[in-house]
Amino acid sequence: MKNKKLGEFELIDRLTRDLPNFSKDVIVGIGDDCAVLKQGDNKYLLVTCDVQIEGVHFLPAVAEPENIGQKAVAVNVSDIAAMGGKPTFCLVSLIIPKNMESNYIDSIYDGIKKSCKLYDVQIIGGNISSGKQLAIDIFMIGEVKRDELLLRSGAKPGDKLLVTGSLGLAAAAVALQQHSVPHCRLHEASIIAKSKLATSMIDISDGLLSEIGHVCDKSDVGVVIYDSQVPAPKGLEFALNGGEDYELLLTVSSDMADKIIELVQKKSGTLVTVVGEILDKTEGRWIQSIDGKNRPLISNGWDHLAN
Amino acid sequence: MKNKKLGEFELIDRLTRDLPNFSKDVIVGIGDDCAVLKQGDNKYLLVTCDVQIEGVHFLPAVAEPENIGQKAVAVNVSDIAAMGGKPTFCLVSLIIPKNMESNYIDSIYDGIKKSCKLYDVQIIGGNISSGKQLAIDIFMIGEVKRDELLLRSGAKPGDKLLVTGSLGLAAAAVALQQHSVPHCRLHEASIIAKSKLATSMIDISDGLLSEIGHVCDKSDVGVVIYDSQVPAPKGLEFALNGGEDYELLLTVSSDMADKIIELVQKKSGTLVTVVGEILDKTEGRWIQSIDGKNRPLISNGWDHLAN
Repeated sequence: MKNKKLGEFELIDRLTRDLPNFSKDVIVGIGDDCAVLKQGDNKYLLVTCDVQIEGVHFLPAVAEPENIGQKAVAVNVSDIAAMGGKPTFCLVSLIIPKNMESNYIDSIYDGIKKSCKLYDVQIIGGNISSGKQLAIDIFMIGEVKRDELLLRSGAKPGDKLLVTGSLGLAAAAVALQQHSVPHCRLHEASIIAKSKLATSMIDISDGLLSEIGHVCDKSDVGVVIYDSQVPAPKGLEFALNGGEDYELLLTVSSDMADKIIELVQKKSGTLVTVVGEILDKTEGRWIQSIDGKNRPLISNGWDHLAN
Repeated sequence: MKNKKLGEFELIDRLTRDLPNFSKDVIVGIGDDCAVLKQGDNKYLLVTCDVQIEGVHFLPAVAEPENIGQKAVAVNVSDIAAMGGKPTFCLVSLIIPKNMESNYIDSIYDGIKKSCKLYDVQIIGGNISSGKQLAIDIFMIGEVKRDELLLRSGAKPGDKLLVTGSLGLAAAAVALQQHSVPHCRLHEASIIAKSKLATSMIDISDGLLSEIGHVCDKSDVGVVIYDSQVPAPKGLEFALNGGEDYELLLTVSSDMADKIIELVQKKSGTLVTVVGEILDKTEGRWIQSIDGKNRPLISNGWDHLAN
């Protein structure tokens, strides 16, 4: 079977399903935005990696090299933020075509350094190899206070489902052949984590429907999304499935939704919107139209092997 | 300027030379086998990454997929071992061509899991993306007791220069179109670290002359290598420059050389050989032939951009 047909998540599942049990130092292994490791009495270590590849994640003809570097860092920061943590260190692994101009590499690395400065991340190492296709693979380390850790697995039936900002802009930019640098919701994530009000959190890198699917899988719950309430610029059809928004998707108990919306808006100015509700697993996964009709939730989110 | 002309180490130097100063949590940043971070009272965290790329580090027509996976882990374990540490966790970042057979990927991952089991490393996450060329990029975490940390920077004039095992076999295998899985000297490295006798250590991934160059750079010393004493199978010319042996190169004060040789051989059965001596920086870097004549040490080691 070819991998394109298998799909990214099925492949991850198949490759890792027979891994031995984790040791007690591993709080979360495979299956969340980051792995979570015990570190000292009051903190967890977060580790994650994400890659940007020429022709897959960016087109050199369209994207500014500095933006490519910035984004390579930002997508990792977003994963750390989604756990309620703050990024601390990274390693930068570059695969560089032999005949690529050094100035181009310099500009990419300038973008990496710029983003690292913005998010207070120290570059402590890395690797350089040659290859056919430019790739920027970043490994990021972060930390989170134990009582501020937010996982995909904490959503409960009755919780409200919330998103920060608005969705679909990144997908619209891609459709217009533009390349955007995501602004990570690191500050908002920190406000949410410190409030200790959220029950789960994930960043929207692969589209709302795909990400809520992960939350439902890990939390063993169902969901209904009110599609008319998904915050998106008028006329945009990308809001449900469009990837790369890097907004936060979180759940919070029903009576705390207003409080967290007010808190985040007051402290960061960022809008948080209720877009759905968590159901019991037996109730299934649905999208509800403005007329109250439900259709089954089927994800069309970004699959890194199919696209 | 093209990167091929610039060279790997010059490029790393240029990209990272204007990084801000590291925080006090960073014991070693860029420039050793691993980065070293403070962790708790008695330990340091080690982090490193290394990649195996199709057509660069291995040829699919020659290499068994399971061996490719094993090696991708082993090269990282070797970097942790060279610091005196033990590996603990890793992330596996895969770039997979769309039409690659799933069975092939499974076999590579089987090799990764096999090596992780051998070296007691837990796979706690990773990433999968599509790309033109298969790449296995592994990010490894390890730990080391503070008083057992071994850096490239500790060599002192008068120290003896030692290597474990013998050199040149991997390069000979490559010349014969074979693909070998390095056996990491993790056990030997641990014996050396616990003895607290060595002043510096590095693993030989890029050839003896290249690696001793790094030790001289970081320790600010010179060196003389006795070429007739470099342990190599008879008739092999690869011993000085051949890469990928993954033996350990270490320095130890002159009066402790016999002791460490005896200790490692007794506890592991592995031969350790004196191959040179550390000089004052002003005395330069030399290779001494059996007739006592010195020639300047010029490295022909593996450059990941030039090859």
